[in-house]
Amino acid sequence: MAHTVIDSGETHRASAAQTAIDPAVPLTIRMHPLDNVAIVANDGGLAAGAVLAGGLLLRDRVPQGHKVALEALPVGAAVLRYGVVIGHALQDMAAGSWVHERVLQMPTAQALAGLPMATVKPRPQSALEGYTFEGFRNRDGSVGTRNILAITQTVQCVAGVTEFAVQRIKTELLPRYPNVDDVVALEHGYGCGVAIDAPGAEIPIRTLRNISLNPNFGGEIMVVSLGCEKLQPERLLPPGSIPLVDQRQLDEGDAGGRGTLDVVRLQDDAHVGFMSMVEAIVRQAETHLQRLNARRRETVPASELVVGVQCGGSDAFSGVTANPAVGFCSDLLVRAGASVMFSETTEVRDGIAQLTSRAASLDVAEALVREMAWYDAYLQRGSADRSANTTPGNKAGGLSNIVEKAMGSIVKSGSMAITGVLAPGQKLQQKGLTYAATPASDFICGTLQLAAGMNLHVFTTGRGTPYGLAAVPVIKVATRSDLARRWHDLMDINAGRIADGSASIEDVGWELFWLMLDVASGRKKTWAEHWKLHNALVLFNPAPVT
Amino acid sequence: MAHTVIDSGETHRASAAQTAIDPAVPLTIRMHPLDNVAIVANDGGLAAGAVLAGGLLLRDRVPQGHKVALEALPVGAAVLRYGVVIGHALQDMAAGSWVHERVLQMPTAQALAGLPMATVKPRPQSALEGYTFEGFRNRDGSVGTRNILAITQTVQCVAGVTEFAVQRIKTELLPRYPNVDDVVALEHGYGCGVAIDAPGAEIPIRTLRNISLNPNFGGEIMVVSLGCEKLQPERLLPPGSIPLVDQRQLDEGDAGGRGTLDVVRLQDDAHVGFMSMVEAIVRQAETHLQRLNARRRETVPASELVVGVQCGGSDAFSGVTANPAVGFCSDLLVRAGASVMFSETTEVRDGIAQLTSRAASLDVAEALVREMAWYDAYLQRGSADRSANTTPGNKAGGLSNIVEKAMGSIVKSGSMAITGVLAPGQKLQQKGLTYAATPASDFICGTLQLAAGMNLHVFTTGRGTPYGLAAVPVIKVATRSDLARRWHDLMDINAGRIADGSASIEDVGWELFWLMLDVASGRKKTWAEHWKLHNALVLFNPAPVT
Repeated sequence: MAHTVIDSGETHRASAAQTAIDPAVPLTIRMHPLDNVAIVANDGGLAAGAVLAGGLLLRDRVPQGHKVALEALPVGAAVLRYGVVIGHALQDMAAGSWVHERVLQMPTAQALAGLPMATVKPRPQSALEGYTFEGFRNRDGSVGTRNILAITQTVQCVAGVTEFAVQRIKTELLPRYPNVDDVVALEHGYGCGVAIDAPGAEIPIRTLRNISLNPNFGGEIMVVSLGCEKLQPERLLPPGSIPLVDQRQLDEGDAGGRGTLDVVRLQDDAHVGFMSMVEAIVRQAETHLQRLNARRRETVPASELVVGVQCGGSDAFSGVTANPAVGFCSDLLVRAGASVMFSETTEVRDGIAQLTSRAASLDVAEALVREMAWYDAYLQRGSADRSANTTPGNKAGGLSNIVEKAMGSIVKSGSMAITGVLAPGQKLQQKGLTYAATPASDFICGTLQLAAGMNLHVFTTGRGTPYGLAAVPVIKVATRSDLARRWHDLMDINAGRIADGSASIEDVGWELFWLMLDVASGRKKTWAEHWKLHNALVLFNPAPVT
Repeated sequence: MAHTVIDSGETHRASAAQTAIDPAVPLTIRMHPLDNVAIVANDGGLAAGAVLAGGLLLRDRVPQGHKVALEALPVGAAVLRYGVVIGHALQDMAAGSWVHERVLQMPTAQALAGLPMATVKPRPQSALEGYTFEGFRNRDGSVGTRNILAITQTVQCVAGVTEFAVQRIKTELLPRYPNVDDVVALEHGYGCGVAIDAPGAEIPIRTLRNISLNPNFGGEIMVVSLGCEKLQPERLLPPGSIPLVDQRQLDEGDAGGRGTLDVVRLQDDAHVGFMSMVEAIVRQAETHLQRLNARRRETVPASELVVGVQCGGSDAFSGVTANPAVGFCSDLLVRAGASVMFSETTEVRDGIAQLTSRAASLDVAEALVREMAWYDAYLQRGSADRSANTTPGNKAGGLSNIVEKAMGSIVKSGSMAITGVLAPGQKLQQKGLTYAATPASDFICGTLQLAAGMNLHVFTTGRGTPYGLAAVPVIKVATRSDLARRWHDLMDINAGRIADGSASIEDVGWELFWLMLDVASGRKKTWAEHWKLHNALVLFNPAPVT
């Protein structure tokens, strides 16, 4: 079968042929019956003169992932993919022509007024029972997938001293605490030299706070502070935000159920000489390592997973293979009672009507609109708009503009009702499917999903990225078999088999679900963990620096 | 002498008593004959009831560095320090009262119209001849103070792979190249997920470009790129920006005198597996290490120094001890023909009239106004103003507001004519005293001064910070003897002796000058180098993220 029509239907869920396809036969993929373009699936693209199923003759060479006109497109004609108008023809194009970003006029952004609000009731799906993983149960009820000592920092100024101390902790202490997986310094570029009371400054502050409360850190919070910085420890972690350390605190009269803020402040008079600062950090770390080392994995239901899904280095296959598989898996997770977050405001902005209609309530739909409107205004204040999103790599991969990219990105969210919305840096407090508003920048989105409390991260990529985080395992899903072959020790799952026809979306979705349970349980490591590939925490700070 | 009047005069240059003072005797410092407040110099402050020289009775306990009213200050009265109005009394205060930030109304910002433009011709000072240091002369004429292999990165995505490769380079290669001091990965949070064409985006891009051209990297530029990122290598380092590597390139017909851009692109088809990426980086690094290893220090005039001065964790002594000493040294450097940059827009904004009047020409004065106006608008767009600058530590250290802080900060610039102005991220092209516009954030300012081409960094601090940079030696100057004593292995110079009366501003200024020549020559290491304390590169990006 040379011309595979993958009809995505309402939920954009494709079902590809189950048998592998001869790579020499021209293969195109159409996502929706209304589409007048299809993308070329063959590795290396197709040459001019190739004949598609149905007899259409290619007039141009079309690279892999790029679009071919299935019918004549006169200037001004609407060009449809995913059943959605992704642009209008800027010139007359004959059937069989290459349709790329330079011949398409991008549609204007959908208005945020008059959207369908909570109009669609997704078909109820049966609950998934009995799935479990081995996790670290925390006192606050959350569950970690790793057992990590995190060292919170109020300000960039202390990064050098903290790093020095971390190297000593890893060398001298960590071998004595074999149940602790790692020691991670939560370095960042915030904390001073910033307009800390300006609108938007609450975002980086709560992001740092909530990262230090991530379930993988076991509620063991220690802070390194300089002393004179704007972001004082008590502002970063005000009373009440710190979890109770152990029963003794209650016995000792901490009746509010509050832990004690454990701070090493470098400017304290008590510190004489550099090594006294280092030793203070090492000493405090040991107290926390002792408690972390006593943690043991226990069997917990899959509903304790808090999964952040993200895509980066996207191509035209993202919305055909990896993201639909992640969307299918997202539905499985929600059916199992887990928490799933999808994000990336500029990559869903053009599909906002799909989201507001799928909102479980008017409140949720309104919160979605509020986050979109906030980001529109933020971009406008900087004289930019959503079109600033697409990258040279997206375009080389066949994505003509942000509308087309958004249609492929949004399918990661699956088909369930959206039951929650988080503003950037907020902590997730509920199960089900949540839109966690973040910029689309891979490292900023990951940082914010960490703050929201994710304990497992899924990242799809078409162009390829070695992305990883120190705090949480990242499962990487390749959209194309070629990438999965070349990056065989960086990609954890190959969703490209969906385009090849050798696996279905359901197959890959279930494979991902099982891999999640294995990775969450510590039975398997991701490739990013194997190589210790860690991207930096990069904060979203819409407020000025000073 | 209990009540030391340090009359700073026109250039704010104080000259303290030469004999050490009994610490038990109350000591206050007045900066200007017009001042109606003085600061308490004694470690630990002074108790209520203490009697100052001249018989004034302290009515309140006044902490070290804090101000005491020298006369009655009725509500609304102008409060003067450095001969400048730093605020108006919010309540009636008797002579001997503690004058702190809560009883002072901050003055409004000076208008940027109608300023004195290039009106003051600083008294010409004799050239300083014959001072030299041992530096690494580069092909472009610049001089390095260290010999470092830097690995430029287009985007945060590649940070994990690059760090893995750097560890291998340090372990396996560096020992074979003993003339190379270090290998430094230029990690940053930019490169993708950003509005790269929005106003202001040119700042982070040119910052990264110019950092990779820092004289300490010897013109050996290698780049690690992902492939799909917005900041493509050719945009980061366009043709013409890359220095010629060696004579052979000219012989081989690189007639434009352009070096070749040496890029490892992780997404290139040639890379199969993670280790092939790592090996490509290591292999490229070795080529550059071979050439760097052939560099030798040679005697060069002091005019080849490019010094960035900065203060952080400031207190009320910053403007009395360390910054005046740095200002004196800055004059020495300019007299020796060197380049000196001072920075920190929000910390000079309130002294703009002093700067525009000292500008060497109308063009320079107008450029100063342009940078201030740009920053005013930037802050206003974010609903902030210059008052967002001061920190809890500044206030605890006696600085009531940004006006008082600015008066103490600006003296770092010395007394010479200002001959140049740089916008953030631009590269310095001239000798003499330049205002390099940057935010006041320590790590952002340092990052931008690195981009400007500094080969030596001077950093004054009153509260104390362990600040350091991987690329350039940082000499740290303590404003107080107490800090210098406690942080004896972090502070390189103690300017607190000026307040004690045991050294003059000139003494400390010359000591700093000589230390600079020693550090620049590699004969001495700074404490930050000794402990390898490195702050992150933090970019100034006024444009939105996407």
